[in-house]
Amino acid sequence: MSVQKPSIPKGTRDFSPAEMIRRTYMFDTIKSVFRNFGFLPLETPAMENLTTLLGKYGDEGDKLLFKILNSGDFTDKITSELLSNPNALATRICEKGLRYDLTVPFARYVVQHQSEIQFPFRRYQVQPVWRADRPQKGRYREFYQCDVDIIGSRSLINEVELIQIVEEVFNRLGIRVTLKMNNRKILYGIAESIGYADKMMDITIAVDKLDKIGLENVNAELRSKGISEEAVAILEPILQLSGTNEEKLNLLESIIGGSETGLKGIEEMRTIFGYAQSLDVKLDVELDLSLARGLNYYTGAIFEVKAKDFAIGSICGGGRYDDLTGIFGMPNTSGVGISFGADRIYDVLSGLDLFPEEANLSTRIIFLNFGGDEEVASLRLMAEVRKAGIAAEIYPENAKMKKQMEYANRRGIPFVAIVGSEELAAQQLTLKNMSSGEQKQVAFVDLIKYIA
Amino acid sequence: MSVQKPSIPKGTRDFSPAEMIRRTYMFDTIKSVFRNFGFLPLETPAMENLTTLLGKYGDEGDKLLFKILNSGDFTDKITSELLSNPNALATRICEKGLRYDLTVPFARYVVQHQSEIQFPFRRYQVQPVWRADRPQKGRYREFYQCDVDIIGSRSLINEVELIQIVEEVFNRLGIRVTLKMNNRKILYGIAESIGYADKMMDITIAVDKLDKIGLENVNAELRSKGISEEAVAILEPILQLSGTNEEKLNLLESIIGGSETGLKGIEEMRTIFGYAQSLDVKLDVELDLSLARGLNYYTGAIFEVKAKDFAIGSICGGGRYDDLTGIFGMPNTSGVGISFGADRIYDVLSGLDLFPEEANLSTRIIFLNFGGDEEVASLRLMAEVRKAGIAAEIYPENAKMKKQMEYANRRGIPFVAIVGSEELAAQQLTLKNMSSGEQKQVAFVDLIKYIA
Repeated sequence: MSVQKPSIPKGTRDFSPAEMIRRTYMFDTIKSVFRNFGFLPLETPAMENLTTLLGKYGDEGDKLLFKILNSGDFTDKITSELLSNPNALATRICEKGLRYDLTVPFARYVVQHQSEIQFPFRRYQVQPVWRADRPQKGRYREFYQCDVDIIGSRSLINEVELIQIVEEVFNRLGIRVTLKMNNRKILYGIAESIGYADKMMDITIAVDKLDKIGLENVNAELRSKGISEEAVAILEPILQLSGTNEEKLNLLESIIGGSETGLKGIEEMRTIFGYAQSLDVKLDVELDLSLARGLNYYTGAIFEVKAKDFAIGSICGGGRYDDLTGIFGMPNTSGVGISFGADRIYDVLSGLDLFPEEANLSTRIIFLNFGGDEEVASLRLMAEVRKAGIAAEIYPENAKMKKQMEYANRRGIPFVAIVGSEELAAQQLTLKNMSSGEQKQVAFVDLIKYIA
Repeated sequence: MSVQKPSIPKGTRDFSPAEMIRRTYMFDTIKSVFRNFGFLPLETPAMENLTTLLGKYGDEGDKLLFKILNSGDFTDKITSELLSNPNALATRICEKGLRYDLTVPFARYVVQHQSEIQFPFRRYQVQPVWRADRPQKGRYREFYQCDVDIIGSRSLINEVELIQIVEEVFNRLGIRVTLKMNNRKILYGIAESIGYADKMMDITIAVDKLDKIGLENVNAELRSKGISEEAVAILEPILQLSGTNEEKLNLLESIIGGSETGLKGIEEMRTIFGYAQSLDVKLDVELDLSLARGLNYYTGAIFEVKAKDFAIGSICGGGRYDDLTGIFGMPNTSGVGISFGADRIYDVLSGLDLFPEEANLSTRIIFLNFGGDEEVASLRLMAEVRKAGIAAEIYPENAKMKKQMEYANRRGIPFVAIVGSEELAAQQLTLKNMSSGEQKQVAFVDLIKYIA
């Protein structure tokens, strides 16, 4: 066979040990908060039936699904008609696709297993998803999502729990964040109040750009969508609302209070903020009326988290949905969830140098290898160290000392143990601290207390 | 849109919370041993280029690869010639495939990143793999592998470390096992000694069946493969070797000592068993000359682990390979590794009821919900409990008490906290132990010590 130059598909990544140790720290921190809040782990298969996935993410999403060729002979399904219709052909020769997000498989799971599940169902799920997007900086074709949802309860306590989870996760990770919130009912109320209930999406898309393009340009976009001058004038003070969340809600009520749905949204936010206050939530939670979030299954509160000290898009987002499971035959099941963006959170932790010392997850001490009885003594000592729960290894060969030290150094192992013939005779070892360079003689029996 | 009855592709599985908690326990136990032995985590992408995967698993393996349809228009690659050759067509319209095992991606990674890696490279990898096998009981199209390898060292200490890892993993899991070992060099030596070096694979395949079909049938199979009567006669005592590992090796030496390779294999096993003895390995390690293992990249020691108290195939297997990375352009890099069979180990743990109490990984206490001030008091208390590291939740709605208790009961939550109006006035709660049924009054400030 000819030699192949090894590579991986574009948009995918290998995670080296150094990256894996950091990612494991990040995921473990997030999962430990989820568990502390009583959420249960779930995993679904990487591949779903294409019928489960198609039509759930819009036309654009359908194109981004990775499709898996049917096993066995698939050529008999190829007709000359289908050859001119690649999409139709693809779904004939592919019955399965890779998971595009964790939300649709979750909805599918809930419906399929509804008789076994205790509702309200609190689940978290941390798994990779795949999208045939054009790869670019920070955008991958395989990436992890980290979702937490409560389904089967309309109680706003659930929104509050998600706020607390956001607070606790980023506290533990050491990232200062702002949680921006809005409510789809308020957005509808605004649209309705200015006489354009049917243009809610156009309005929110325009408003969403306020930060980037400024008020004048937003107004211009609104006009271009057919919104009247009068309506633009009513909208302006809403867009410029400032003050505390309470003040914003009061002012908003005076403007859109005539919309029943809008008023409901205002009440929901008052309840949520009220709970947060009585529970001493310290997180910076800000009502942001320009927050819209694209996914059209949201029906109530929506969330987005921004890092305060690092310029990057939102690192977390979610909201309340009232009918995610309807498409699979289980209507009227409300839920609320939030998704942590692992890759961006990783970038923030890296950029702000917030990862803890790696050493505790990797080898703490390496024994050099001089062969013979010294080797056996080292192997025995190492077994004791491992038994004490300390990660240890031995250089497997009696190589030149320089080579062994170089390996220890490059691996970043904090302690090196040397058991040569003199040490063996004295039942001592030479222990070198690789960061200080300090060397000392340590009796075999005392080793653990020096490195623990 | 029409309602779809939800299902998943055959051969794939959802892992429910109860299963996930058990699987997490199993994987965490295995990984903690790997880390304790100084192994580093690695992850590779789910999809590899098909050129990386094809030809690595034999013709049968190639057929079992899941292939991913190219994004965009693929129909222009379909010619009428290719329509009569599905395999060739598949590789034209699919450039990527799902990972079939963790070994080939590991070899690909090592070669691709050789300049960044410190050798000997000790890595572990726990990820799913996919095979388009016909699904049947205990055989899935998506399943996890759990591999640990040291690459870049010929030292037999590495084999010994794997023996110790097997010992420690199954000790921690509480499974009594036998580790069967053999050596490909010995198998070659046997074949060479009876004059059929070229028929080593035929001989080992026949010998591998000794347990199942008995000596007579093995001999018949050997004859059918063209092995002479005389050679079969020499082989017989080898197959019936008994006694300690040392006795077996001595007897074996007297029979196949004329084969240089065979002798080398015997010496390797003596060294490995010698180390194990001086390191007080308690694991039952047995030289089994009928152990062959199918994968033809093994060149030295081979391993297989069987559970003593549960009838199931081998739950762990591996061996020494001298040229795994050659195909990717990096020759002469010896390694040794072992793979833990997650699904079978899970079945053994289930079958022998060895999973620990689940409670510690799931919610420990639930607060019932009576709304109003009682709800706020419960939410505050719950925050304290969570801060103490104890997983807690509140029923999110002021539902009927019976419904709330049923939820707590079905979820298997050990403690229920009741803060009604009387309790709130007295700054006490009623704490119910769900397994004993016992109820007691506990002051708010004392709660944690009762449930910790």
